[in-house]
Amino acid sequence: MGALRRKLTRAGLPGLLVTYAPDVRYLCGFTGSNAALAVTRRAARLFTDGRYTAQADEEVKAARVEIVSSAPSVSAVEWLAAQTGVNAAGFDPARTSVADLARWKAALPSRIRRGFLTPLPAPYVEPLRAVKDQDELEVLREAALIGCQLFERILGELRPGVSELQIAAELEYQARRMGAEGMSFETIVASGERSAYPHGRATPAALPRRGFLTLDFGIIHKGYCSDMTRSVFFGKPRLKERKAYGAVLEAQEAALAAVTAGVSANEVDEAARARLRREGLAEAFSHSTGHGVGLEIHEPPRIGAGQRTRLQSGMVVTIEPGIYLPGEFGIRIEDMVQVTRNGGQVLTPAPKALIEL
Amino acid sequence: MGALRRKLTRAGLPGLLVTYAPDVRYLCGFTGSNAALAVTRRAARLFTDGRYTAQADEEVKAARVEIVSSAPSVSAVEWLAAQTGVNAAGFDPARTSVADLARWKAALPSRIRRGFLTPLPAPYVEPLRAVKDQDELEVLREAALIGCQLFERILGELRPGVSELQIAAELEYQARRMGAEGMSFETIVASGERSAYPHGRATPAALPRRGFLTLDFGIIHKGYCSDMTRSVFFGKPRLKERKAYGAVLEAQEAALAAVTAGVSANEVDEAARARLRREGLAEAFSHSTGHGVGLEIHEPPRIGAGQRTRLQSGMVVTIEPGIYLPGEFGIRIEDMVQVTRNGGQVLTPAPKALIEL
Repeated sequence: MGALRRKLTRAGLPGLLVTYAPDVRYLCGFTGSNAALAVTRRAARLFTDGRYTAQADEEVKAARVEIVSSAPSVSAVEWLAAQTGVNAAGFDPARTSVADLARWKAALPSRIRRGFLTPLPAPYVEPLRAVKDQDELEVLREAALIGCQLFERILGELRPGVSELQIAAELEYQARRMGAEGMSFETIVASGERSAYPHGRATPAALPRRGFLTLDFGIIHKGYCSDMTRSVFFGKPRLKERKAYGAVLEAQEAALAAVTAGVSANEVDEAARARLRREGLAEAFSHSTGHGVGLEIHEPPRIGAGQRTRLQSGMVVTIEPGIYLPGEFGIRIEDMVQVTRNGGQVLTPAPKALIEL
Repeated sequence: MGALRRKLTRAGLPGLLVTYAPDVRYLCGFTGSNAALAVTRRAARLFTDGRYTAQADEEVKAARVEIVSSAPSVSAVEWLAAQTGVNAAGFDPARTSVADLARWKAALPSRIRRGFLTPLPAPYVEPLRAVKDQDELEVLREAALIGCQLFERILGELRPGVSELQIAAELEYQARRMGAEGMSFETIVASGERSAYPHGRATPAALPRRGFLTLDFGIIHKGYCSDMTRSVFFGKPRLKERKAYGAVLEAQEAALAAVTAGVSANEVDEAARARLRREGLAEAFSHSTGHGVGLEIHEPPRIGAGQRTRLQSGMVVTIEPGIYLPGEFGIRIEDMVQVTRNGGQVLTPAPKALIEL
C-alpha cells in the first residue's frame, strides 16, 4: 500500500478504485470475491457484502472494511467522491465493463459526473506486484519446491500406454495430497507428436513407446502460483532429438545466466533466442522466453523480443524456451527464477539433464 | 443460430457482436480463446488468431472463419461495419471492457462512430442458451450420470478422520479417471459445523465421528456442466437432525414436483420455501432454490423468489434447497432436472434417503 500511495502522489492522482481481485488481494489481503477497494493518499476502504463479514475481519490489513448490501464498487465510488480533497479517482478501463462504468457515473453527483472517474492509460497495481517482498519470495520458493517434489513423484508413473489424461489426473491428485490449493493453470501433458503443440492439454492419447513427453504444470500455494516444464524421453533418443534437447537446455541456461537486476527483458529473451538461432531453430521457438509469476500465473514483466522493461531485484520470472517441430516433436524446459542484484536465483531445483524412461 | 437470427429480426437489429466465450461456443462450436463472432441476418463470421487455424476449421459450424493477426473483436467490428445494410450492431455492455469499446470505436469510420455500436439492455445470447436442444440434453444427461457414478465411488472413501481436502482430491481424481474434462466449480466438502457454510470449500479439517457432511460438486463433460449435492451423516442422527433432513428432502421433492413447462420460476422456489417455512426453517434457507446449467455452471433461469421467468420445455435447472444452522449443522440436496411439457425429468438418479455412515 505504501508503494501505491507514493505512486499516486507522484502522479498527482488523489484517488484510486481497485476492483480486480488479484490487485485487491495484493493491496489489502482480502481473498473473497465481490469486493472493491478505494484508496486515497490518506485512507483505504474495502467494500464487500455480508457473506464476507468474518472473512474480511480476519484477512484485511491496511484498510477499513465496510459491508454493503448493494454493489461494492458503486459504494467505493460514492465513498471516494465524498472524501475531502479527492476530485478525481483512477480506474482500469481494461478491467472495467461498460455497464459498470455507467453504473458508477450514475451514482456520482451530477456536478462531478464528467471528470471524476479517470481511465488510467495502463495497469496501475500490476507493475507494483511484479516486485515481490520477502514474504512473497518465501511463498514462491515454497510453491516452486512443491512443484519439483510433484515432478519427482509423477516420474514414477510415466510409462508407455498410460494416457495423458491419467497422468494429469495423477499429478493433480498428488498436488492436492501435498496440500496445494489447486493447479495454477490447466496441466499440459503432450506426448509424441503432440509434444509439438506448445499448449497441448492432456488427451486420452496413450504415452508412446518412443518419443518426447512434455509436462508443464503449476500449483497454487498460499495464493501464489508455481510454474515448471520438463520434457522427458521414452526409449532411446536419436541424434537429432538429443541435439535438439541439448540446444533447448543451452538456450535455457543462457537465458538464466542473463537474468540479473538492471538487464532489460528483451536481452534475456535474446540470450535464449540467439542460441537456438545458431542451431537453425529460431523459427521453431515460436513464443516468448518467459513471464512474471505471483498471485497470477501470468504477470508482468514479459520476457520477450522488444520488451524493454528492466528486471528489478525481487521480480520472479519463468525462463522457458522451447522448440516445436510439427509432425515430429517438441521440447520445453522451464524454471522459475528470482532476480537479484547478483544474478538470477533458480527456484526450481529439478534436474534438467534429459531423462530417458 | 436460427433462433438468434429470428431474435435479431424481431428486434430490428441488423448486426450483433459476440465476444463472450460460452456464447461464441454455443453459436458456432468454437472452443478456443481469443475469438469474436459477428452475426448479421444473412451471414456469420468467426475471427480468431493463427494458433487456432486447424481447430477452427474442425470445430466451427454455421460461420465462416477468418484468421487475423490483430485483435479478433476489432476485426469483427470492422467486418460488421462493412456489411451492406448493417447500420448498427449490438454488444453486451456487461461483458465489454471500457478499453475494448474505445478500441472498437476507434476502428470505425468517423461518420458512424457515434451510433453504430449499440449497448444491449440485457444479455442477448444467454436466454437462448437456456433452452437446450436434443444434443445438449443428451450431453447434460450423460454429465449428470457421471456425477452420480462419482458420488457412488466417493461414498466408499468417506470415514471419520479423513480430511475434507483428501475427499476433494479423491473426487477430482476419480472424475478425471472417468474422463471428465474438469470440475465445473470448486468442490464443496463441508463437514460437521462447517456444513452450515453454504459454500464451504474443502479444508484440512477431518471428517467428524458424528455429524453431517455436505458434498456439492460437478464435472465438465463435452463442455457441459453437471451439478449435484448430497448431505450424508456420520453416526446416528438425533431427532432434530433427522427431522431437518426430512424437511429439506420434502422441500426438494416439492420443488421438483412443481417443475413443468409454463410454471414461473418463483412458484418452483415457493414450493420448496413453503415446506421449510412450515417447519420454522424459512430463515435457515438463505439462498435461491436453483439455477440453469449448461455450458456454464450458472445460467438463466434463476429459480428464486421474485423470478417471473416461465420455465420452458428444454430448460435444465438445478433444484437445491438447503438449510444452515450456524454452530450446529447444514443440509442441502440438489438434483438437475429437465423441464418438459409433462413435468420435470430428474437427471440425477442418486438416492436421497439419508445415508448414515
